Amino acid sequence: MSQQLIDSIKYLIRLSAEEELLLPDLFNRVTLKKNDYFLQEGKVSTQVAFIETGLLRYVMNHKGEDISAYFSGENEWVGNLESFLSRQPSTRSIIALEPTVLWTASRDNLQKLYDTVKEGDRMGRLIIEDVFVKSSKQITSLYTGTPEERYYEFFELFDKIQHRIPQYMIASFIGVKPQSLSRIRSRLSRKH
Amino acid sequence: MSQQLIDSIKYLIRLSAEEELLLPDLFNRVTLKKNDYFLQEGKVSTQVAFIETGLLRYVMNHKGEDISAYFSGENEWVGNLESFLSRQPSTRSIIALEPTVLWTASRDNLQKLYDTVKEGDRMGRLIIEDVFVKSSKQITSLYTGTPEERYYEFFELFDKIQHRIPQYMIASFIGVKPQSLSRIRSRLSRKH
Repeated sequence: MSQQLIDSIKYLIRLSAEEELLLPDLFNRVTLKKNDYFLQEGKVSTQVAFIETGLLRYVMNHKGEDISAYFSGENEWVGNLESFLSRQPSTRSIIALEPTVLWTASRDNLQKLYDTVKEGDRMGRLIIEDVFVKSSKQITSLYTGTPEERYYEFFELFDKIQHRIPQYMIASFIGVKPQSLSRIRSRLSRKH
Repeated sequence: MSQQLIDSIKYLIRLSAEEELLLPDLFNRVTLKKNDYFLQEGKVSTQVAFIETGLLRYVMNHKGEDISAYFSGENEWVGNLESFLSRQPSTRSIIALEPTVLWTASRDNLQKLYDTVKEGDRMGRLIIEDVFVKSSKQITSLYTGTPEERYYEFFELFDKIQHRIPQYMIASFIGVKPQSLSRIRSRLSRKH
């Protein structure tokens, strides 16, 4: 079992010694190589996962081009809740950007966690609150942000992992061509 | 107390008779006239609310123009969690589009609900799961949707309330000028 996962849960909720003993039955360790899929567009998501090490990106295909819509790194949770909850095919893929170690939970095991851990639902609520706030910021930025503002937003959202993300993926996240991102970067660097 | 709010909570979780008696202390009835603010951009959100009747829209200001970023109607919850949780000024206003009756809960009272109602956190988790899934769809649509696809997405997201929303607000939601929306509508009506 992953001490890092246990610590991450204990950061959010009280977990009794007995409850801690349930966790090894609920999570499976999975390793991904760079470019391996955690979830493939068109398939139904059946797992959520805690990231022990590594980095993943959420990718949407738009007219043959890949758009990176989100990134998740160590100590974050990864999954496509839309597909996971509705059991509909996923509209995005989730792909390892680095060698990655995950602790995955199936739908049944996540429900078991909610049902048997006293504060399991609180843990779920707090994790989803956090990702919901991030997605709200992303929506604001997509509606009203200039490319420069979206570039700043990118750094705010992905502060700890931004240096591990290739420029062309940052460009698609903020919705510009890679050449435009270079121009934005040089404009901003002249300002500072 | 609102039977409709109690029923809505009971649809999500088990609520004991004793717990039901706590609710009147946690919620306040608030009425808004058309165009009244539930939350003003720049202010810190201190309340979430259940909508008994009426309709509200989330508005962001972009270079002097109002963008309608979301709509919520009867039996839905309304608030800006980003501002509510972080205590930072809100980046959007929430305005009544019709005369509206709300049941509001302060931050302290919501926390009290989570702490004293046995399945309170489950209720919170389920409500946030639902809005998070909708915001994920909105992000997908903003990145990859054509105006036509975003128009369909609008109807999918706001199925029950769409006929009460003015055309120019629909246009700003899908990110086109009102004239373009008219063209999209007539193109689509010729197809059917």
